[in-house]
Amino acid sequence: MAQKPSIPKGTRDFSPAEVSKRNFIFETIRGQFQKFGFQAIETPSFENSETLMGKYGEEGDRLIFKILNSGDFLKKADSQALGQKDSHKITSYISEKALRYDLTVPFARYVVQHQNELEFPFKRYQIQPVWRADRPQKGRFREFFQCDADVVGSTSLWQEVEFVQLYDAVFTALGLKGTTIKINNRKVLSGFAEVIGESERLIDFTVALDKLDKIGEDGVKKEMQEKGISSEAIEKIQPIFNLTGSFSDKTEGLKDILATSEVGKKGIEELEFINSSLESLGLQTATLDLDVTLARGLNYYTGAIFEVAAPKEVKLGSIGGGGRYDDLTGIFGLKDMSGVGISFGLDRIYLVLEELNLFPETVAQNTKVLFINFGEKEALYGLKAIKKLRTSGITAELYPEDAKMKKQMNYANRREIPFVVLAGAEEMEQEKFTLKNMKSGEQFSVSVYELVEKLK
Amino acid sequence: MAQKPSIPKGTRDFSPAEVSKRNFIFETIRGQFQKFGFQAIETPSFENSETLMGKYGEEGDRLIFKILNSGDFLKKADSQALGQKDSHKITSYISEKALRYDLTVPFARYVVQHQNELEFPFKRYQIQPVWRADRPQKGRFREFFQCDADVVGSTSLWQEVEFVQLYDAVFTALGLKGTTIKINNRKVLSGFAEVIGESERLIDFTVALDKLDKIGEDGVKKEMQEKGISSEAIEKIQPIFNLTGSFSDKTEGLKDILATSEVGKKGIEELEFINSSLESLGLQTATLDLDVTLARGLNYYTGAIFEVAAPKEVKLGSIGGGGRYDDLTGIFGLKDMSGVGISFGLDRIYLVLEELNLFPETVAQNTKVLFINFGEKEALYGLKAIKKLRTSGITAELYPEDAKMKKQMNYANRREIPFVVLAGAEEMEQEKFTLKNMKSGEQFSVSVYELVEKLK
Repeated sequence: MAQKPSIPKGTRDFSPAEVSKRNFIFETIRGQFQKFGFQAIETPSFENSETLMGKYGEEGDRLIFKILNSGDFLKKADSQALGQKDSHKITSYISEKALRYDLTVPFARYVVQHQNELEFPFKRYQIQPVWRADRPQKGRFREFFQCDADVVGSTSLWQEVEFVQLYDAVFTALGLKGTTIKINNRKVLSGFAEVIGESERLIDFTVALDKLDKIGEDGVKKEMQEKGISSEAIEKIQPIFNLTGSFSDKTEGLKDILATSEVGKKGIEELEFINSSLESLGLQTATLDLDVTLARGLNYYTGAIFEVAAPKEVKLGSIGGGGRYDDLTGIFGLKDMSGVGISFGLDRIYLVLEELNLFPETVAQNTKVLFINFGEKEALYGLKAIKKLRTSGITAELYPEDAKMKKQMNYANRREIPFVVLAGAEEMEQEKFTLKNMKSGEQFSVSVYELVEKLK
Repeated sequence: MAQKPSIPKGTRDFSPAEVSKRNFIFETIRGQFQKFGFQAIETPSFENSETLMGKYGEEGDRLIFKILNSGDFLKKADSQALGQKDSHKITSYISEKALRYDLTVPFARYVVQHQNELEFPFKRYQIQPVWRADRPQKGRFREFFQCDADVVGSTSLWQEVEFVQLYDAVFTALGLKGTTIKINNRKVLSGFAEVIGESERLIDFTVALDKLDKIGEDGVKKEMQEKGISSEAIEKIQPIFNLTGSFSDKTEGLKDILATSEVGKKGIEELEFINSSLESLGLQTATLDLDVTLARGLNYYTGAIFEVAAPKEVKLGSIGGGGRYDDLTGIFGLKDMSGVGISFGLDRIYLVLEELNLFPETVAQNTKVLFINFGEKEALYGLKAIKKLRTSGITAELYPEDAKMKKQMNYANRREIPFVVLAGAEEMEQEKFTLKNMKSGEQFSVSVYELVEKLK
């Protein structure tokens, strides 16, 4: 191979510095998941195709990466479809496995498959990569990690309260202050559609409403009109655009708008319970806000809908989202299993922490001390001390060759190793080590015991 | 879908208990990798097919999972090959990406691609899954993790010394005493073939010799004969089978056998350097042993060859292996980049720790205390205490519904949660909590402060 090698578009190599930062985020999230009583599961990277296909709509089906069967995969393929080069038809003959597209469907499959081993309510978290054959663009990749926490088997609204606290706990632990946790309720959206007499156009209605941020009030109304929602109906929902003030100001406003809708009133009641509980419990750094335009994957959600916005000074979309779905496992034959869950957008969170300079300096797991190699005897003398340092938890390395001093020091500099140890014939004789601080240039003559103490 | 869902053969779901145990192994290995100065990188799950194909031999090519191109993948496929159902020929038309088969080739690709950003010697570790379309069987999976540490850019034998220490440090940290780190050297094997005049049959010779454990001396000799190695030659290597005693006893024996082979003598010299350095540095729980039959992936290795055997009471194959390869990155056009590395067999190590009951009890990240739910007010009262507990690092949960007491207690029991808190109207009035030890049945009335202290 003459060409310089490359990786598939939409995928990434991660350097040591990047892995350290990503692991800092993972470990922080994992730590909070665990404190809230969530337990980790892991599922295979690929699933049987029938587990995934048809679960994400037509577009989703297209974006699922399919794995070619091994061996003579064409043997059983339909000859006619082959002759016609009918890719769509041939796929099921030559591929029976596909890469995970998200963590939710595999989780539903897991719950149904292992239902007899699980205690319900089952609180699980899962941090694994997913793959999508999306067109790659800035911030959108074909391989990326999802971090999800879900509870299945309980309809209690305390879960929603807990999830808001969990978001707050994670972002606080990450040092990211000033996030906004936006909440809405599918029942409120259904109420809107009901009171304007457009229940059948609920999806069109909410898809348009969800775009308020991007296209503004006029844009939303225009889209609704194009979707066949009457001007009269649009007139009726005008008050939605005028909801402002505190959480309770907004719920009060909603009570007027949804006065005639039972489902709408139920939604308000749920929102009020969640808000008043959280007012009583308090949040550390996040703010809970009611956003009645929030819809996300509407056809999924049946109750609460969440989305987290980064602090306003960072111009980035949502860094998390979730909601309640009343029939997660129905697709696999297990009925009446209500679930609610949230997810964290790792790549976006990474960009936010980077932009706000919030990664702790200690994140980089760099070597603390490099031993200069002066030859065989000196190296062995150094390795004995290195062994002691490592046992005391200090990252220490020997430069592998007795190269020129300058080369070894340059190596320490370029790798930003803060200390070097010089131990030649003289030091060996005195059972000492010369410790050099690479930043200040200071040098100390120390015993092995003092070396450990100084570097701890 | 009426059928109970399942996962593809050769893949696994991991339960919370299994994930915890696996993470214990990963974290232990990662901790030692870092102390030795290795830095983590991560590469994409799939690579361009040309990066992987042809790197693992014909059998390897067959076992690589190929990913079907997205969209109308048949459009560009050769019509004639399609008509003939020539799967082999069609593959390159309909698939241009493939799942990672190991971590070594992607690492080589990474080094070449990023050579200008790296400092050499570059010490990297990588813990990621790989995929192989192997026939699944006991202990062999189609998706499994590899844990590799390698250094590239240095021919220094100190690396070999460090890797033996690293193996020792990891297995000691895992609590697994009594492992045997077997070492050999490709140059010694080349020497054998040279002194018996069968240098051209080096591979056949070593493949046969490598089977001594399994098929015994007679079996090895028979296989050599079948491969065309003369009886005279086989007679000549008889002393190989009689090497016993300590490491130095064996190297002394080797000196007789390899007296006429320059390359063989170089191999002995390397082995002696590594052994004497390690005698001087000492190992914690492992034993270094010279095994001249060890060959592993011979066509790769050019110097040291490593393999780790679990303690004898466990009947399992190797739990790690590695060696030096002098031209890792040559396949991608970067010459003269010597590498040496080792890997850990996660699944085997898991089985060994399980069999010897070595997983620490604290591995399971279970919830420490469940708050019984007596209704809305009580739940809110409980959640305030739960928030304090979590801030103090204690995993605490509220049972989400005010279900019957018995149901909630059963849930705590089945999930093996060691404490429950009961806080009803009476406790609320006194600003107290009743803490119950589920094992002993003891109950205490405590303040929130005492609750945190008791559970810490």
